[in-house]
Amino acid sequence: MTFPVVGMVGGGQLARMTHESGIPLGIKFKLLSDTPQDSAAQVVGDVVIGDYRDLDTLRDFARGCDVITFDHEHVPIEHLRALEADGIPVRPGRDALVHAQDKGVMRAKLDEIGAPCPRHRIVGDPQDAAAFAAEGDGFPIVLKTVRGGYDGKGVWVIGSAEDPALAQPFRAGVPVLAEEKVDFVRELAANVVRSPHGQAVAYPVVESRQVDGVCDTVIAPAPDLAEELALRAEELALRIAKELGVVGHLAVELFETADGRILVNELAMRPHNSGHWTQDGAITSQFANHVRAVLDLPLGDPRPRARWTVMANVLGGDYPDMYSAYLHCMARDPQLKIHMYGKDVKPGRKVGHVNTYGDDLDDVLERARHAAGYLRGTITE
Amino acid sequence: MTFPVVGMVGGGQLARMTHESGIPLGIKFKLLSDTPQDSAAQVVGDVVIGDYRDLDTLRDFARGCDVITFDHEHVPIEHLRALEADGIPVRPGRDALVHAQDKGVMRAKLDEIGAPCPRHRIVGDPQDAAAFAAEGDGFPIVLKTVRGGYDGKGVWVIGSAEDPALAQPFRAGVPVLAEEKVDFVRELAANVVRSPHGQAVAYPVVESRQVDGVCDTVIAPAPDLAEELALRAEELALRIAKELGVVGHLAVELFETADGRILVNELAMRPHNSGHWTQDGAITSQFANHVRAVLDLPLGDPRPRARWTVMANVLGGDYPDMYSAYLHCMARDPQLKIHMYGKDVKPGRKVGHVNTYGDDLDDVLERARHAAGYLRGTITE
Repeated sequence: MTFPVVGMVGGGQLARMTHESGIPLGIKFKLLSDTPQDSAAQVVGDVVIGDYRDLDTLRDFARGCDVITFDHEHVPIEHLRALEADGIPVRPGRDALVHAQDKGVMRAKLDEIGAPCPRHRIVGDPQDAAAFAAEGDGFPIVLKTVRGGYDGKGVWVIGSAEDPALAQPFRAGVPVLAEEKVDFVRELAANVVRSPHGQAVAYPVVESRQVDGVCDTVIAPAPDLAEELALRAEELALRIAKELGVVGHLAVELFETADGRILVNELAMRPHNSGHWTQDGAITSQFANHVRAVLDLPLGDPRPRARWTVMANVLGGDYPDMYSAYLHCMARDPQLKIHMYGKDVKPGRKVGHVNTYGDDLDDVLERARHAAGYLRGTITE
Repeated sequence: MTFPVVGMVGGGQLARMTHESGIPLGIKFKLLSDTPQDSAAQVVGDVVIGDYRDLDTLRDFARGCDVITFDHEHVPIEHLRALEADGIPVRPGRDALVHAQDKGVMRAKLDEIGAPCPRHRIVGDPQDAAAFAAEGDGFPIVLKTVRGGYDGKGVWVIGSAEDPALAQPFRAGVPVLAEEKVDFVRELAANVVRSPHGQAVAYPVVESRQVDGVCDTVIAPAPDLAEELALRAEELALRIAKELGVVGHLAVELFETADGRILVNELAMRPHNSGHWTQDGAITSQFANHVRAVLDLPLGDPRPRARWTVMANVLGGDYPDMYSAYLHCMARDPQLKIHMYGKDVKPGRKVGHVNTYGDDLDDVLERARHAAGYLRGTITE
């Protein structure tokens, strides 16, 4: 048999779910994980425990892999270059990944290809940030460290020049990107997958609802989205994937404005929370298509299997034991799809998600929210 | 976290796919496998290599498991008794499993509960088998060793009293069951899942088509099956599950006769080839429901997600390299679902299956057959 070995760097839930989706294809997985307790390390057979920031570890791991892909975007670019020099295909490659690692590089590239973005520029200090505000409509503005942020971390909304948070982003010693605070009506995400061959598929554009900067629910497809806007969002994501040379899954997080514009918020070059609904709601999941893309196999059909699919994230609550909540959740909704990550429960930590689908959006939303709330412990009946 | 550990005895593809379906639930799997190369051992993290026929091995393995279940039905009944005496829940339990291990015991029990069976009795030697034939409509008859058969092995169709095969079944030193050769119009399978709690669900009755005694395709639901007969088959399977105390998945293989009867052919107390279509065609797969049942969790919805789903087994051909066939199969049918088992290809060996679904049965059948044939190498375009 010549079934390939996919080397997955990082042991988080994205690696876990990618492994799950690779099993039916007979694809062999090899995992580089920080600890044996990591989400994916619990379920993968072939696990190497080590630090991806150490080049020797990474090189040893890559030996025997036919291709390397990632659970996260934090592997240093120079390490990726070294792997590529060793002859190991790295997907997405470093020329693409740099845009996901550095928001400054990402914005510059998006400007270059004419992708619509919030007004932005790199700012050097608090005074410069205030000047950036004055160049536009004033405060509030958003400041982001160009590297290292996720789920609202590394992002500050600054209300005025006197805001005590104004100086904070500059303390990390990382360049700071200033952006206008977009007055959006909602957040959308356009998920696409692209293969080295250049084949690409687009999932339906979804609506992503955040609570406290963390994704709470995703509705697929985005309700009441004008067809023209949906098409524009899909085309934009496909164009970004092509121009940035992305291989694998690309999530383009978007702001939809009241005046019918879409602006790129963030990019993620890996399976993404806004695509988790595809596990139960699409013909081919984002994880299966990511695997197919990194192996340069023909991509699977991204179309939805249900009229509506809703994903709700399960955050940790005060209760460490989520398993006991299964009884009620499963008995209440035999169609419920639970996806847990094997993580210890900590308040506010993403430990899983649920998917529901059906013809009636209100019902589908209610079932997802109920299950996520019951698992967290915020709903008790 | 109090997520349970499911101990799975046997490393075949059923264990592999059960593990796959347990990952989203956060269920921890521990596998007892003959070799590290076994189908499931390739993808499960926590694997013990050992012989399930050795009681000490089995006991050591069971320590730390919250429940034990099986990839196959070959674990000696006395070993199951020992595990139960150690306080480990075994599901299905020995009182149920004995019916799947011994076709003589199975037929006796089915007679007792009034389940319709082909005419049958245990026969002691070739003369007795000929007498059995004479008691009914004569030859042909079917002889089966009561233990150890599968996929046509351990089964002989005897055409006449002079048939040279008549003596063969008696050479194994295992009791021999004689059955009338049922003149069936087709084979059906009724798949049900039952929990210790007594909850049970029934999947739609499917048609199973055999080639050379091996399952070739399964069509869900069985085309043109009278609703009354479908209901009778589901009720029969549910009744057998209850009366035999089955926990987990039960497949009841049935003959449909020209005069509208259904007769029980075989029982399997584990996920079954006739239920593989549920992975992509039902709301909850047989594997996920088997896991839920052995953990006494509420069962998931068994209803179909598509009008038609077809499963076609992929047998090994002359070509050892099935992976290279992915390119054509995936490009031809982006909706195709491939399930490979990680097994070495040997001619005639089941190494995987494909699922297809849709509204047009002819199309769904053609796609499944094409993919299975192309993977095997019997179709080359």
